[in-house]
Amino acid sequence: MKERINKVRQHMEKAGLRQIVVTNPSSVYYLTSCYVNPHERMLALYLNEEEAFLFGNELFCLEQLLAGQDSGSDIQIATHKDSDNAIAGLARTIKAGQLGVDKSWAARYLLPLMETRKDVRCCLGSEPVDLARMQKDEKEISLMRQASQINDQVMELALAAIREDITESELAAYIMERYRQRGADFGSGAALVCFGENGADPHHEPVNRRLQRGDSVLLDIFTPISRYWCDMTRTVFYQEASEEQQQVYKAVKAANLAGIAAVKPGVPLRDIDGAARKVIEAAGYGPYFIHRLGHGCGIDCHEPPDCSAASEAVAQPGMVFSIEPGIYLPGRFGVRIEDLVLVTATGVEVLNKAPKELAVV
Amino acid sequence: MKERINKVRQHMEKAGLRQIVVTNPSSVYYLTSCYVNPHERMLALYLNEEEAFLFGNELFCLEQLLAGQDSGSDIQIATHKDSDNAIAGLARTIKAGQLGVDKSWAARYLLPLMETRKDVRCCLGSEPVDLARMQKDEKEISLMRQASQINDQVMELALAAIREDITESELAAYIMERYRQRGADFGSGAALVCFGENGADPHHEPVNRRLQRGDSVLLDIFTPISRYWCDMTRTVFYQEASEEQQQVYKAVKAANLAGIAAVKPGVPLRDIDGAARKVIEAAGYGPYFIHRLGHGCGIDCHEPPDCSAASEAVAQPGMVFSIEPGIYLPGRFGVRIEDLVLVTATGVEVLNKAPKELAVV
Repeated sequence: MKERINKVRQHMEKAGLRQIVVTNPSSVYYLTSCYVNPHERMLALYLNEEEAFLFGNELFCLEQLLAGQDSGSDIQIATHKDSDNAIAGLARTIKAGQLGVDKSWAARYLLPLMETRKDVRCCLGSEPVDLARMQKDEKEISLMRQASQINDQVMELALAAIREDITESELAAYIMERYRQRGADFGSGAALVCFGENGADPHHEPVNRRLQRGDSVLLDIFTPISRYWCDMTRTVFYQEASEEQQQVYKAVKAANLAGIAAVKPGVPLRDIDGAARKVIEAAGYGPYFIHRLGHGCGIDCHEPPDCSAASEAVAQPGMVFSIEPGIYLPGRFGVRIEDLVLVTATGVEVLNKAPKELAVV
Repeated sequence: MKERINKVRQHMEKAGLRQIVVTNPSSVYYLTSCYVNPHERMLALYLNEEEAFLFGNELFCLEQLLAGQDSGSDIQIATHKDSDNAIAGLARTIKAGQLGVDKSWAARYLLPLMETRKDVRCCLGSEPVDLARMQKDEKEISLMRQASQINDQVMELALAAIREDITESELAAYIMERYRQRGADFGSGAALVCFGENGADPHHEPVNRRLQRGDSVLLDIFTPISRYWCDMTRTVFYQEASEEQQQVYKAVKAANLAGIAAVKPGVPLRDIDGAARKVIEAAGYGPYFIHRLGHGCGIDCHEPPDCSAASEAVAQPGMVFSIEPGIYLPGRFGVRIEDLVLVTATGVEVLNKAPKELAVV
C-alpha cells in the first residue's frame, strides 16, 4: 500500500498537484486495503506530500478495516457520526490553494467544501490515482488471471446450458449461480444474455424472451472475484447460423483478433481501436459498430484507460483493457466478441481463453 | 410526467431556484419515464421555468425511450457522441446566475461546467425534485404495495428454506432466484443474510458461514420491482432462542411497533426515530442501536426523507420510509425488524405484512 501511495505521490508531483481527495471506493481500496461501499455517506482519502487521512462515517468501522494492514501506520483515520457535518474534518485539513478532487465525487460534498473553503481552488484530480491503477502490479495481475480463468469455466457451463425455450433471464440466473459457487464477490456482476433481436442493443438486459432456432445468443458476463473483475463476451448461434450471421461473426472475430494483434507497449489505444474498426468497416458494417472498442478493467469493471478513437492513452506493461468489437443490426441480431487483454513487456496476453470459433450449439 | 414536472417547478419557485440540473437516474426516470443507467457517461435533465432539455449520450437511445411517453412533446432531447465534449450542450443552454445541481452529480461534469460558465453560480439543487418524489402519487403507491406483497411471499419462502448447515450465501442465492421468478428488475436488489455473530454487523454481506442451532437468522431483503423498491428485515432463531435473544427480540419488536404507532401526518420524523429509540434505551440496549431508524424508499432504495434524530422532515401523506430498529451485540448476534410504512391521510399503512412474532424455526 505504501508503495502505491508513493506511486500516486510521484504522479501528483508530475501533475503539479500538492493535495488530492480520493473518493472512488475502488481507489480508496487500492490505496488502503479498506473496501467500503459508502452509499450516500462520506468516504474520502486525503493525500498530500506527507500526510494521508481517511475520513469516513463511524458506521464503516474504518479502524477495524485498517488494523493489520501494512498501510495502517501511515494513514490517520478521522470518523464522523451521521449527525455531524460530514465534511467538517476534511474542510479543516485541506490547505489553501489548489486541490485535486476525484472525478466521481458527488456535488453534495464538493459544493459545501468549496463554499466552506473559498481559499481552495478545486480541480479534477483523479489522474494521479488513475495512472497508478492503470499499471497493475504482479499481485493484481495474478488476481485478474484467476478471475478470468473462472470466467472461462462459467462461459463453458453457460454454453452447455443452452436449450430450446430457455429464457434470457433463466440463463442469466444460471450464470450468476455458477459465479456464486466459485466465490465471486457478493452483489455485483451480471450476465447480459441477449437472444436474436435483443442482441442488437448493446445494453439489453435479460427478459423472458425464449430461445428459438436460428437465434444469435450473445453472452456478456462479468463479475468481481476477490475485488478484481473479469469481463468476457461470446456469441453463438442456436441450431443454425444463416449466411449473414456467419458473415457478421467472421467480421467481428477478425476485428477482435486485429485489435489484440495491435496491442503492444508504446501503441496509442486509439490505434488499437482503429485497427479493429478498420476490419469491420472493410466488411461493410462500419455504421453498425456503434461503441468504443474497449475499456480498462480492474477493481472497477470500467476504469481507465479508455480504448476509443478519442483515447489519449498509450499501451504500457501492466495495463488491462477489453477488446470488444460488435456489429448490431437493429431489430435482427447482434454479435460481440470480448476479451480482456494485459499489455506485457513485449506484447499482449489474453486473460480469458474461451474459444472464439464460430459455434452452432 | 407533465404534472410531476409542474410539481417540481412549484418547489423550484418556493426555493428561489429558476433553473436546475437533474442527474440522478431515478429522478430523471421520475420526470421523463426514461430509465437509463449512464454509468460514467453524461445524463442530465435541465429544467427552468418554461423549458426542459434532456442531455445524454446517443448510446442511450433517448428518442426511442421518450417516444410514446406522455412527456414526449414537452422535453427536448439533445444527444452527444462519446467523442464530443459531453457538457458542451448543457453549458450553452444554462443561463447566467444561480443553477441548482443534483446532489449526486459527479465532479467530472460539475467542475468543467463551472469552469466553462463562470457567470453561473452552482448550488445544491436537489430539493425541488426530492420534495416531489417524497410525495408518492397513487400509481407509485400501487407499485410499492405490489413490490412489498412480493417481498412478503419471498420472505415466507426464505424462512421455509432455512435448514441445518445451509450457508448465508446459499440462502441469499435462493432468495434472489425467488425474486427473479416473480419479475424483480434485473441486476439490482440483494439479500443480507446474517447468521449469529454476523448479524451484529448491520452491513454484513453473505459468506459461507453455515447455520447452527441457536443462531439468530437476520434476513434483510430488498429489490426493485417495476422500478419501485421493497425492503424488509425479519429475524428468527434456529431451533432455539436463549433468554437473552428473546429479550433482545422483544425490545426490537416493541421499538418497531412504537415507531410505526408514531407515524401520522404532521409528526417530525426525528420524533418517530425518538419514539422507537426510547423503547430500546428503556430496555437497556441504547448503545447497541447504532444507526438511524429508517430511510425513505421509492425509485431508489435509499432516498429522502431521512428518518433519524437529525431529520428535518415532517410526515406527510404519500411519504414512504422504513422503520428498522436493531440491536447489535458485537461478536454475538443481532436483531433487526424492518417494515416500509406509507403515511396516509389519517395515519399509517404498513406496506409489507410478514409476521413479526418471535419465531424459532
